[in-house]
Amino acid sequence: MSSDPTEVETACLAAEAAFDTYRATDREARAVFLERIGEEIAAIGADLITTASRESGLPTARLEGERGRTIGQLKMFAGYVRAGYWMGVRIDPALPERAPLPRPDLRLRMIPLGPVAVFGASNFPLAFSTAGGDTASALAAGCPVVVKAHPAHPETGELVAAAIRRAVAACGLPEGVFGHVTGPGNEIGAALVQDPRIAAVGFTGSRGGGLALAKLVQARPVPIPIYAEMSSINPVLLMPAALAARGAALGTAFAQSVTMGVGQFCTNPGLLLGIEGDGLTAFEEAATAALTQAAAGKMLTGGIHDAYENGANALAGHNRVETLARGLVGEGDARGQAAFFATSAEAFLEDPALGHEVFGPSSILVRCKDEATLMSVIAAAEGQLTATLQMDPEDEALASRVLPLLERKAGRILVNGWPTGVEVTHAMVHGGPFPATSDARTTSVGSLAIDRFLRPVSYQNLSAALLPPELRDDAPNVPKLLDGVASLG
Amino acid sequence: MSSDPTEVETACLAAEAAFDTYRATDREARAVFLERIGEEIAAIGADLITTASRESGLPTARLEGERGRTIGQLKMFAGYVRAGYWMGVRIDPALPERAPLPRPDLRLRMIPLGPVAVFGASNFPLAFSTAGGDTASALAAGCPVVVKAHPAHPETGELVAAAIRRAVAACGLPEGVFGHVTGPGNEIGAALVQDPRIAAVGFTGSRGGGLALAKLVQARPVPIPIYAEMSSINPVLLMPAALAARGAALGTAFAQSVTMGVGQFCTNPGLLLGIEGDGLTAFEEAATAALTQAAAGKMLTGGIHDAYENGANALAGHNRVETLARGLVGEGDARGQAAFFATSAEAFLEDPALGHEVFGPSSILVRCKDEATLMSVIAAAEGQLTATLQMDPEDEALASRVLPLLERKAGRILVNGWPTGVEVTHAMVHGGPFPATSDARTTSVGSLAIDRFLRPVSYQNLSAALLPPELRDDAPNVPKLLDGVASLG
Repeated sequence: MSSDPTEVETACLAAEAAFDTYRATDREARAVFLERIGEEIAAIGADLITTASRESGLPTARLEGERGRTIGQLKMFAGYVRAGYWMGVRIDPALPERAPLPRPDLRLRMIPLGPVAVFGASNFPLAFSTAGGDTASALAAGCPVVVKAHPAHPETGELVAAAIRRAVAACGLPEGVFGHVTGPGNEIGAALVQDPRIAAVGFTGSRGGGLALAKLVQARPVPIPIYAEMSSINPVLLMPAALAARGAALGTAFAQSVTMGVGQFCTNPGLLLGIEGDGLTAFEEAATAALTQAAAGKMLTGGIHDAYENGANALAGHNRVETLARGLVGEGDARGQAAFFATSAEAFLEDPALGHEVFGPSSILVRCKDEATLMSVIAAAEGQLTATLQMDPEDEALASRVLPLLERKAGRILVNGWPTGVEVTHAMVHGGPFPATSDARTTSVGSLAIDRFLRPVSYQNLSAALLPPELRDDAPNVPKLLDGVASLG
Repeated sequence: MSSDPTEVETACLAAEAAFDTYRATDREARAVFLERIGEEIAAIGADLITTASRESGLPTARLEGERGRTIGQLKMFAGYVRAGYWMGVRIDPALPERAPLPRPDLRLRMIPLGPVAVFGASNFPLAFSTAGGDTASALAAGCPVVVKAHPAHPETGELVAAAIRRAVAACGLPEGVFGHVTGPGNEIGAALVQDPRIAAVGFTGSRGGGLALAKLVQARPVPIPIYAEMSSINPVLLMPAALAARGAALGTAFAQSVTMGVGQFCTNPGLLLGIEGDGLTAFEEAATAALTQAAAGKMLTGGIHDAYENGANALAGHNRVETLARGLVGEGDARGQAAFFATSAEAFLEDPALGHEVFGPSSILVRCKDEATLMSVIAAAEGQLTATLQMDPEDEALASRVLPLLERKAGRILVNGWPTGVEVTHAMVHGGPFPATSDARTTSVGSLAIDRFLRPVSYQNLSAALLPPELRDDAPNVPKLLDGVASLG
């Protein structure tokens, strides 16, 4: 099940050869292709769920939900492709009478970048892997995709890859529209991102992995965009009135959130901030009680479990960190035992290591003595995927003071929820400032993710025959800016 | 007139301190500010033109046009800020009844990145310098700007900087919205792009300069986006029917284009491609005759002239390059003597140096024996700002075969014009694949340039009181995607 670098090159050559044909497909054909991928995945049936569960250790109910999400996001992109906003059409008609010089006819559209390398993620064997969000958005943009399968779920990856290949064939597209390479080490991935045919990279994984790929990509003779989602501890601000009114309830809810899916979400709440007082004490006590009784679920891989234990043990052994709770010890391999720590704002500010991600069911509470301290802890935090406010109406004034800071730290700000749920929709941002991602200008979930794989081209004085169809005067149903004013067709 | 690194830090601290106030301005206030900058520049009067002409050697008529363009693009951004498309608003209302889980309320807007460093360009002392396109688009996005003035026109830069400072004061904005640092070497620029307060960089200049800045930016603890416009030779394809019908006329027109402004445009036609035949011979003869008689204009700086002569002499001395013409030798310092070279497709394909930019009135013609050779030369060319087709209706079939290739090479494709004119409008792309720019996903001219300095933030379940004004249900005149469907208010 392992590729050699020659196979990487073969897949990239095929992707390049397929690019012009694939990008010339009309919106309807491309949308039908995306939908067909979803149908082929659904048609695999129970085998997909049992294989993914066996390889990942994730429960079947969760994987069934993830399959629904995977198919759902393919459908969302199909609809978004049809709607056409992503084409970014702009038309500035010629002004032949303008003085001193006439204005030429100028028309702009977004075109796909070229073949895209996608790295499957360990923690979403379906929704963020072979046919996951990166693949769906790149295909929606008109880019062929070469997936580097995640070695933690090779058979699941191959089942999905075969489904995509069937969709490619059924839609009469060139085989090179989709490639799939595998391999346990870094060699295959490195060859892939360095291949001169590859025009962009999508990655979800560790900070170390993302930074290593970014370095390779920047060192290419022709550097390319990389969208690496890497590391986030997703601060949750426990606001004073909310703590006073429902500190214990928040503590219990937090414990459920941080242990969901054995904490293996990019948006897991790994950092809590609160101002000291009775409400925070009630929160701590409730969370501690719940987490002490939390069952230890099976983690995705032995390596992830080892890294988790190392991270949790480092915090436990830190001389300025208090261990509030460790959960139940699980039976069997790679069980992720919940962990809940506390520290002072001073310690957090002095040691950046306390703000690093521990991937798994672990969280650290930073006790702040007042609002100014809370603000300084937020200001010191790294870039994040999310920031959460647990607040009551009386906290609104404080919330509005903290919001401008949170906007600069995170891609998504949420109130009175937990960050782990990520809706696949138009207004979602799953992204954020470094090191949450390597490129804060984008999202990897939601329809806006398609923009990552597009670039603008302007056409000046082309005849209708030469213009791309969507830029012609008679193109139907093309949303555009016409002389700077939005028009829907 | 030279800053020390402490002044850089002071300017960046002031920009950071001004950021939250400035980005909170409403669209009307920001638009009025942009317009006011234009008014203050206009109010400088003739002194601006004479100073710029003295420092740059550019004729006053050209500089008057450039001033109009500078003011015009500030006005264009004011209008675009008011129109609000750049805010990218998306609203997905809550679906409380959705099963199995309700959908939260999600709202997205683009927010500015933070303080932006802008490097003035040598060749546009007004339109691409202190108050040029990068500054205007960053201010339009809501980012404070710190300009590193170009040392070739320090007094011009200071006149414009003072105008911007007057506009800042007149609009009641914090002083830090605009900073201006100067210095002849690389030290000031390096300190600027490494300052932790700086969130993005705009640069127009040489390939070496752009790559050096990109390296500094990528090595920061927190890497940031850089938009460096660097190097382009702007291929012009002379199509067979056009050559047959009007080869000589095209040659004369080309000679005018390549020598305009002493060839000191990023979009200067530095590469010509044609299939051998009588038409191409007529083109060569006419261009050679015109360029042999071309006057040598004063170049912007002695350094630019030296680099130009080195580049032209290297081509002249290349054993596979034929010198078709050198223009008249000028009197006085730093006169750019036109140069016209020819080579074979084989030589061009074998020596990448023949495809490197020679900034000034120089161009090289690559004679191709057939269409396949023409295609292979285009495929071998680096990324470009523009690609031009000189064509007649009979060339349409060939043009449609070559267009997919040109789209992958250039940010703008034009027919039967010359690439040097760059309209400041909505459908313009002044950008392109590496090394034309460091980031092909954008443009530095036209309203789309504002997107370079924005990133998306998603807000989940925020109360109306906490939501940014443009995301509230009652926000007037906000173009948006509502549940995935465009709406104009």
